[in-house]
Amino acid sequence: MRQAYQEQLSTIGDDLVAMTRLVGSAMNRATQALLDADLQLAESVIRADEDIDALNAEVEERCFEITALQAPVASDLRVVFGSLRIAGSLERMGDLADHVAKQARMRYPRTAVPAELRGTFAEMGGLAEAIVSKTGGVIATKEVSMAADIARHDEDMDRLHRELFGIVLSPTWAHGIEAAIDVTLLSRYYERYADHAVSVTRRVVTMVTGEPYVAVTLEG
Amino acid sequence: MRQAYQEQLSTIGDDLVAMTRLVGSAMNRATQALLDADLQLAESVIRADEDIDALNAEVEERCFEITALQAPVASDLRVVFGSLRIAGSLERMGDLADHVAKQARMRYPRTAVPAELRGTFAEMGGLAEAIVSKTGGVIATKEVSMAADIARHDEDMDRLHRELFGIVLSPTWAHGIEAAIDVTLLSRYYERYADHAVSVTRRVVTMVTGEPYVAVTLEG
Repeated sequence: MRQAYQEQLSTIGDDLVAMTRLVGSAMNRATQALLDADLQLAESVIRADEDIDALNAEVEERCFEITALQAPVASDLRVVFGSLRIAGSLERMGDLADHVAKQARMRYPRTAVPAELRGTFAEMGGLAEAIVSKTGGVIATKEVSMAADIARHDEDMDRLHRELFGIVLSPTWAHGIEAAIDVTLLSRYYERYADHAVSVTRRVVTMVTGEPYVAVTLEG
Repeated sequence: MRQAYQEQLSTIGDDLVAMTRLVGSAMNRATQALLDADLQLAESVIRADEDIDALNAEVEERCFEITALQAPVASDLRVVFGSLRIAGSLERMGDLADHVAKQARMRYPRTAVPAELRGTFAEMGGLAEAIVSKTGGVIATKEVSMAADIARHDEDMDRLHRELFGIVLSPTWAHGIEAAIDVTLLSRYYERYADHAVSVTRRVVTMVTGEPYVAVTLEG
């Protein structure tokens, strides 16, 4: 019984790490679909969002079952409650990858991003990849020292987001209103993806250290 | 002991209803601040977001305590888990009201919304008010029949959101890129506010009927 219980707890952790892989892969492929106007790739991301939602529901159910059947002690219960919140944030990260893919699909066969901004979006995609991979590492290892790296990547993401705002609002912007809105929305998706990852790592820190959770102000 | 337990459970429900009032008031006042370019009102909304976050944290803690100390039976535990998710959604609705208020503050002393779109945003504000008030009613009474009303309001909100998109992208748009982006973002805030309310009512339906929760695809 006791061993089954520890196994159940660690399965929840494994599921969360699996979710970081799925939402990481989704955002990577969404970025590629966006930059290459690759319709098939965009559609594969949109379809795969169901798997992420299903895994989130599975984590919820596992958390419920372990609590109902095993009555975890307080420290384990903190882990269960934190895991629920983490799964919710990861599911939202999957939604944001889905939004990027849908934007790519909507503009196909054109690209939603003007040529001179491809580099910036590629950079945002790279940051998203680094952030989610480290987030998975924090969940798997409870090495909360990685949280500082993630926060730094998040600051870089915020900087790129502000830069893009400046570019679409500058008098030299030559791509019209639709492209300005596309760039603004896309940029927000990346920025919020990073915010959710920061929120996940704070939850892990809370679980590990017992310190209170500090809410991330999500910008959208 | 048993009575204290029932009281604790019902306190969680009361807190959730209180949260709907706070996020309803926040969105109302944010809409007013937006339409009137009222800086003081905008700042009061932004300050009050802390109270919403604090109430969310309180609900989380109450849910944790009741689970740790009382080991609720499965049906009550469903309510506790559902309440956690509901509090999270309501907290996000508070953030969205905060975003509207921040947009109003950013453009002060101008208004972020061109004169001819004031009516549409007033209508969105009215829908947000109706939705959140009925959401509070659903939580308080468990009368899930109101969910249909909320879904209908949400459809109206989606329609206004699409209309606004059409307007800023039309060749006759005369307010430039910044106003187009403002309108797009503001419109999304209202639309997502409504989506979160739908998500809350689905959670309540799940708690009441025991049917599985159907995720709302949040558009941002």
